[in-house]
Amino acid sequence: MTIGIVGAGQLGQMLALAGYPLGLDFLFLDASADTPGGRVAPILTGEFTDRNLLRKLAQSSEVVTFDWENVPVRSLRGLDTRVAPPLAALATSQDRIAEKRLFKRLKIPTTRHAAVNSARGLAVAIKQIGLPGVLKTRRLGYDGKGQTVVRSAAAAADAWKLLGTAPLIYEELIPFDFEVSIIGARSTRGEVVVYPLNHNVHRAGMLRLTRAPFGSILLQQRAAQYLRRVLEHFQYVGVLNIEFFVCKSRLIANETAPRVHNSGHWTIEGAVTSQFENHLRAILGLPLGATTARGFSAMLNLIGVMPAAAPLLQLPGLHWHDYGKRPRENRKLGHCTLVTATSRQRDAAARTLLAALDPPSSRVRFPV
Amino acid sequence: MTIGIVGAGQLGQMLALAGYPLGLDFLFLDASADTPGGRVAPILTGEFTDRNLLRKLAQSSEVVTFDWENVPVRSLRGLDTRVAPPLAALATSQDRIAEKRLFKRLKIPTTRHAAVNSARGLAVAIKQIGLPGVLKTRRLGYDGKGQTVVRSAAAAADAWKLLGTAPLIYEELIPFDFEVSIIGARSTRGEVVVYPLNHNVHRAGMLRLTRAPFGSILLQQRAAQYLRRVLEHFQYVGVLNIEFFVCKSRLIANETAPRVHNSGHWTIEGAVTSQFENHLRAILGLPLGATTARGFSAMLNLIGVMPAAAPLLQLPGLHWHDYGKRPRENRKLGHCTLVTATSRQRDAAARTLLAALDPPSSRVRFPV
Repeated sequence: MTIGIVGAGQLGQMLALAGYPLGLDFLFLDASADTPGGRVAPILTGEFTDRNLLRKLAQSSEVVTFDWENVPVRSLRGLDTRVAPPLAALATSQDRIAEKRLFKRLKIPTTRHAAVNSARGLAVAIKQIGLPGVLKTRRLGYDGKGQTVVRSAAAAADAWKLLGTAPLIYEELIPFDFEVSIIGARSTRGEVVVYPLNHNVHRAGMLRLTRAPFGSILLQQRAAQYLRRVLEHFQYVGVLNIEFFVCKSRLIANETAPRVHNSGHWTIEGAVTSQFENHLRAILGLPLGATTARGFSAMLNLIGVMPAAAPLLQLPGLHWHDYGKRPRENRKLGHCTLVTATSRQRDAAARTLLAALDPPSSRVRFPV
Repeated sequence: MTIGIVGAGQLGQMLALAGYPLGLDFLFLDASADTPGGRVAPILTGEFTDRNLLRKLAQSSEVVTFDWENVPVRSLRGLDTRVAPPLAALATSQDRIAEKRLFKRLKIPTTRHAAVNSARGLAVAIKQIGLPGVLKTRRLGYDGKGQTVVRSAAAAADAWKLLGTAPLIYEELIPFDFEVSIIGARSTRGEVVVYPLNHNVHRAGMLRLTRAPFGSILLQQRAAQYLRRVLEHFQYVGVLNIEFFVCKSRLIANETAPRVHNSGHWTIEGAVTSQFENHLRAILGLPLGATTARGFSAMLNLIGVMPAAAPLLQLPGLHWHDYGKRPRENRKLGHCTLVTATSRQRDAAARTLLAALDPPSSRVRFPV
């Protein structure tokens, strides 16, 4: 049985590696064969909008899924085979305004915000929402790209100049204490599982460090509740991630990702069943696997340049993930995961790892 | 960096799946592309003795390894690239007499035995070793094939008729209490790691169930000591397995396998680092990973026919491995592994699993 995956990045690669033991085969579609997915499975090479290729992918596949949330929705519409997750969830995640509307509708706290389509609209939004705020493109933003902080009315003009060619959203800048995300899966049979909460630390807009399990039972329960609302709303199928700001113990939803997520990479070694395996089980209607954590995990993204593996592999229990991508500034090339018996050991190990990789000036810090 | 693997069975497949996250690529050589390895990596199709193909494999690979111990030693001799494990260990494992000699030389207890090359030689061997005994082919035996028990002098003629076309060995039949195996790895840098002991239950000569960790500290230490002797003797590189009979707490060496081994499949989910990853780390000179068990594992081989996955995936913590092979009687098609927090839970879960798969008449039993 073949699973078609639109997008052959590291997420697609890890889906395939998780799926082979289930007896599944994979076929990717991506613009280049020189991709992490292309290293481990056959690949159709072409644009995500190429109808012929999409038809070929669908005809070869039991179900089609995607590893990137910016795949054009129209590309996946009207295919001959089932697509999961649902396109409505994909469309929503592609438009920050639609996402905010969803949060509001499902009574999930989110930032105050306004759509912005003109310089004048931005001025109105700033008056309404206040300063400081963040101006973001409604679509295609990722890893901190397509957004800028607006700290004064005077700075609004520059912000508009930077981003104003696309539809925008202006949001209040939340003075958050930290960021968390929660990942869950819902299967075609309606079964739902939720993973322990992830604590995420970003650097220059990119996820650098995730620790899980993290936080109080209360925080976990509330985040899981919000996640379940979104899963049920869409009659969702597959893995879904929601990112939250945490501000004085309040969860404020930031965005959704209708796919396996970078903050869930630790589940490969740190949970009974990985997010990748559960995504596949979910879209195939198989029973979902236990999401229980096995110890305490820290996942560190390796960005821009892969460090030498050998010195790091000496750290006991370190797991290495090299996606096989060409090095490039700000590109996620791999990650490594440490699993320990206690959260204290985990945090100490994460600090050792960070110290081995980064000079103090660029080293991320994290609250315990 | 590409690893060449001679043999593309499930062991090769699991090596590739463990190696992709290390950033490695794989190239197989096997008689058929329709193999577990061929599902997950490119494959050269042809005989293990095809010099052109072997040369091509060697030229494409940083190091060549094998997933089957009956690859002809001469095929791997004189290749342009490094081969690991060492050919001396491979040659020894291919000949039961050489294996016995090795055990004797390294002061590892083994069965009393004699080489048998004629019907008359068999009669002499029976007189010398006693009855009952086991007559085995010296070469190419596996999964209980190529051997027969001799219970009386009268039965010797039949045994000779059955196997006498090949060089044979006659061994005492050990009234063993149970069987264990131990797996370890030695790297190019001389680093050695050893996994917890496996308890193995066979059915019709084929491994059906492995439980690990198993047994007393004393048994573990003695088995590890014997394993280390073999590793050092060969200046071994890669993963090595030794099987023992346990007879009144004494370990009696049965055979070696110079490769990743079926009784170590549980290490994928049940140990910090799997035997597959450690084989690759060892042959590449990377630091070896921790072999510590994560909980208690039971691994069950799925033989002849793959059961439906869905009902079994409902068992919490069950991990499924479908090699993608065509069903055939007595063929290993897959395995599943259960990991639990205690050995008691593990044994209960293994019994549940066995009961779900087999009628009482063919269900294997195991001592606790």
